[in-house]
Amino acid sequence: MTDPKLDEVLNRLDADLPNAIDRLMAFVRIPSISTDPAHDGDVFDAATWLTDQLREVGFAAEIRETEGHPMVVAHSPEDAEKTLLFYGHYDVQPVDPLNLWDNPPFEPRIEDTPDGPIIRGRGTSDDKGQLMTFVEACRAWKAVHGELPRGLTLLFEGEEESGSPSLVPFLEANRDELSQSLALICDTGRAADGRPAIATQLRGLLGEEIVVRGADRDLHSGSFGGLAANPIQILCNALSTLKDENGRITLPDFYDGVEDLSDDLRRDWEALKFDASEFLSRVGLKQPIGEKGRTGLEMVWNQPTAEINGISGGYTGDGFKTVLPAEARAKVSFRLTGTQDPVKIRAAFRDHVARFVPTDCTVEFHEHGGSPAAVMDTSDPAFAAAKQALGEEWDREAVFIGMGGSIPIAGDFKRILGMDTILVGFAKDDDRIHSPNEKYDVESFAKGARSWARILAKLR
Amino acid sequence: MTDPKLDEVLNRLDADLPNAIDRLMAFVRIPSISTDPAHDGDVFDAATWLTDQLREVGFAAEIRETEGHPMVVAHSPEDAEKTLLFYGHYDVQPVDPLNLWDNPPFEPRIEDTPDGPIIRGRGTSDDKGQLMTFVEACRAWKAVHGELPRGLTLLFEGEEESGSPSLVPFLEANRDELSQSLALICDTGRAADGRPAIATQLRGLLGEEIVVRGADRDLHSGSFGGLAANPIQILCNALSTLKDENGRITLPDFYDGVEDLSDDLRRDWEALKFDASEFLSRVGLKQPIGEKGRTGLEMVWNQPTAEINGISGGYTGDGFKTVLPAEARAKVSFRLTGTQDPVKIRAAFRDHVARFVPTDCTVEFHEHGGSPAAVMDTSDPAFAAAKQALGEEWDREAVFIGMGGSIPIAGDFKRILGMDTILVGFAKDDDRIHSPNEKYDVESFAKGARSWARILAKLR
Repeated sequence: MTDPKLDEVLNRLDADLPNAIDRLMAFVRIPSISTDPAHDGDVFDAATWLTDQLREVGFAAEIRETEGHPMVVAHSPEDAEKTLLFYGHYDVQPVDPLNLWDNPPFEPRIEDTPDGPIIRGRGTSDDKGQLMTFVEACRAWKAVHGELPRGLTLLFEGEEESGSPSLVPFLEANRDELSQSLALICDTGRAADGRPAIATQLRGLLGEEIVVRGADRDLHSGSFGGLAANPIQILCNALSTLKDENGRITLPDFYDGVEDLSDDLRRDWEALKFDASEFLSRVGLKQPIGEKGRTGLEMVWNQPTAEINGISGGYTGDGFKTVLPAEARAKVSFRLTGTQDPVKIRAAFRDHVARFVPTDCTVEFHEHGGSPAAVMDTSDPAFAAAKQALGEEWDREAVFIGMGGSIPIAGDFKRILGMDTILVGFAKDDDRIHSPNEKYDVESFAKGARSWARILAKLR
Repeated sequence: MTDPKLDEVLNRLDADLPNAIDRLMAFVRIPSISTDPAHDGDVFDAATWLTDQLREVGFAAEIRETEGHPMVVAHSPEDAEKTLLFYGHYDVQPVDPLNLWDNPPFEPRIEDTPDGPIIRGRGTSDDKGQLMTFVEACRAWKAVHGELPRGLTLLFEGEEESGSPSLVPFLEANRDELSQSLALICDTGRAADGRPAIATQLRGLLGEEIVVRGADRDLHSGSFGGLAANPIQILCNALSTLKDENGRITLPDFYDGVEDLSDDLRRDWEALKFDASEFLSRVGLKQPIGEKGRTGLEMVWNQPTAEINGISGGYTGDGFKTVLPAEARAKVSFRLTGTQDPVKIRAAFRDHVARFVPTDCTVEFHEHGGSPAAVMDTSDPAFAAAKQALGEEWDREAVFIGMGGSIPIAGDFKRILGMDTILVGFAKDDDRIHSPNEKYDVESFAKGARSWARILAKLR
């Protein structure tokens, strides 16, 4: 059944768009980088700003403390039965290297492009712009209906970009309040050709930091070169052997739980006509480097990875220093698929690295989050309803897609709160999330809010 | 023939030691880090300070401009024939990591230790303290004789720690002025057991910086992981294959020109009873990592090396960032022995690295100096005379040793100016040159100056 007032809500959203953009820009101006302790105050300010917005829209909203950055939780007036939980995150990625930004990352601006106007700034897409599509849909709904959709719970996190250490404890401590019949998450993208999409499988993520230590001080390579162990060399040796010549990861039992695509999904994905070389050409590359024999979408959605995200050691300033450094560091992450077990893979990785460390050197590991892949059960009729609503808004059939990125909370919702999640997002592949010059199309923002109004009309 | 006034000169040096230490401390206070452009002014100040000292001692001294940091050149009154050229360097290594210093590196102080008093600070040993032993010997000589030893030329460089880019052009441009019968360099150490030593072979040094570039921006490992090339991985793959499982370097023809030890030198080196494990234990290590089957002294004096001196790429701050970086960098150096050719080895290294770089990525190389090993002809009777003078000062027989470090100028003196070089230095293995907490023993400084007075008495 379609809400008879839906058109009014959509018109209201269109009329209010300039104000909605102003609100988003104010939100983006708060540099809420959760991984950098220097920005702790900014992260809190973003939570406060969001809470104020939600109250203005009519929610009962509050900041809820955690061991780390706070949660923002909001409720619309109660309904007879459990209904929907919406999730987003108000923290953003770091911005370095800063010199590659065309405008300061926290001074957002609107730019006209051949593809239409965009909003440029850190978090415009991931995830401030995306979560605000839902908030704006609620705002218009309230304006038209005089009240919010009943039974909505909203949960906003401030640690998504730094491994969500407080999320699971928070879900466990607030199970009754947060358990609903279905979750909605707006942190994903449209299909590569721009059509609306629901992500039904997301890769998991496991992060590890390694510190290899050798001598108790930096050494002169003239006096000690040829005798003393070099921690950078040890690190390179350990990391270069993570993959074989076919791009396959060499850790024992690593592929346990990785499933080949179902025939249905393979057909859907092939219909997307993804061209890996064309996709890579947008960032100046050409050759897919994944396991030989896999399609591009398999590599990025259905295959696990091992990636070195950062490395440092020795002298890295201008000029040259013939030093044998006392230590070297690397940050390594694995994207996981199917039912791969992050606990077992972490252990296998540590064993692998330790085998390269001589007995007179040491290695130390730091854990940076670990969550399995999330694979949705799409037989719930809400998936079909949401797919239909999206099709109506965008005038194109919506598709089920995979996601290379990790939204571990979808798995947590299932495991802890017993809910499936519909992952709907409006980002585009060229949004440069996590990179300099992040942007969000005004179209994504405007039609995203309209999409949520349509989905709410079907699901409430 | 021994100078009858030698004892007077030695007594004068002993009496003036406190003043000599004060002068050295003033020199060390100037932070003349040549590799860091932020210290260009300090490097110039150090040249000025040294020039003033030399004039005070009675030399005709001046600062001579180059394309980089200046040279300081000084002459004593002319002699009938060409005589001696003394060389040292007034620049110092960078000081990071600063937090590992017990006192600020450019605020030198005297400390009492179980091995006697030491002077602590950057450059106290390498090379300000060492070069000042010669200047102080000249100062005492002048005080006693009323004039300096005739026919001395002194040359001090300010770019030794950053690859000496201006040295060869300067030698070539001033060939007549600088060509003497013999060169003296004070930038080496005593034998491990403390006895005086003359270094008769030094390893060469070849420095390379590599920049591997992939995508034209940093990428999100969720969106691109499994598809896009990772420059850190490429770098690790290239660098981990520089050595085989026996510690032997894999570049083609790399060992061309590496000579096994002569029987005489092998006997001399064995007499030093060098214990590699004990040597390494002083810096917290134990296992020599050089080519299997080589003695410790061979590894560090007579075998070439390949070392990664620095590496950087991706996110290296606090926390975690799931980035695929646009670029990664490494600094790599090779210590060379025998007649290994730096030009051929540079080309072989670049070929090796380039083989790991996919066609859609790029690699860029930056040259940081390259000089072959220096092997002296010890049949010149001046070597025997210097050895005898050292034995008289230290009451122990002096020895011919090798050096793991590089003093490319010894090779340049031979090639450009036609001179052999006697390398005499008084540093100890535990001086921590190039590391935090560099020091120079007061004994090294005091008896070093006395040693030069004795050598000058024999050679003038």
